[in-house]
Amino acid sequence: MPRTPVPDVVGEFLTRPNPAVIATLRPDGFPHTAATWYVWEDGRVLVNMDATRRRLEHMRRDPRVSLTVLSEDEWYRQVTLMGEAVSIEPDSDLHDIDRLSTHYSGQPFSGRHQERWSAWVRVDRWFGWDGGASWPPRKAT
Amino acid sequence: MPRTPVPDVVGEFLTRPNPAVIATLRPDGFPHTAATWYVWEDGRVLVNMDATRRRLEHMRRDPRVSLTVLSEDEWYRQVTLMGEAVSIEPDSDLHDIDRLSTHYSGQPFSGRHQERWSAWVRVDRWFGWDGGASWPPRKAT
Repeated sequence: MPRTPVPDVVGEFLTRPNPAVIATLRPDGFPHTAATWYVWEDGRVLVNMDATRRRLEHMRRDPRVSLTVLSEDEWYRQVTLMGEAVSIEPDSDLHDIDRLSTHYSGQPFSGRHQERWSAWVRVDRWFGWDGGASWPPRKAT
Repeated sequence: MPRTPVPDVVGEFLTRPNPAVIATLRPDGFPHTAATWYVWEDGRVLVNMDATRRRLEHMRRDPRVSLTVLSEDEWYRQVTLMGEAVSIEPDSDLHDIDRLSTHYSGQPFSGRHQERWSAWVRVDRWFGWDGGASWPPRKAT
């Protein structure tokens, strides 16, 4: 898998409000997956969770995550990002979840009384795939 | 997470050609995710890979997988399935990949000269989620 930074076309893809699934590690090492909102910013990914979500415990214990981002309208295009949660902080004023909610739905987050947490994931490796071949296409040498 | 079997409404959801992301474990324990076709059958999941795919090696080494299935038209509805690959066999006559391709695209698989492998995952646990709450809704007690 190539190391980051990602090519511009991949960065542009990642800025859209795409469906995504994040994998974390349970204490027994079993992978755990869940759909998630994310925001891509300067080679990092912001995710945000209710305080009761299992993946919050998982990332506190073992920061390694993998995120597969699907295209909004053609899910055979996918970009997978692998890296580590480098910051896990309370989202006390709901600033981050509002940012994510506005990105995906155009509206601030509806749950104003939840305890939310934000994690920033530093992305170290990535790959892209589109209907049976690497994406973006590798340049001929 | 509840143990299988899944409720009928979840089973019905899983029979559709939904987008899905599968997590496997790298030899170093890092989670690895990728979009995948799947077919749900009697509490098991069929997936199929080109012989060169990393997740094939991963499942041979450690059978634990997690699969998050998104709704085709509303990806906030999700079902996650956790279990173990109990069978990994060559798909010599492309029967399985044709089954998957037909399920998703209505056509047999286009790559007639690939070496493909099938894995059946026995699903042990599951959870469903829809826009901020468990799905299907838990019955009041």
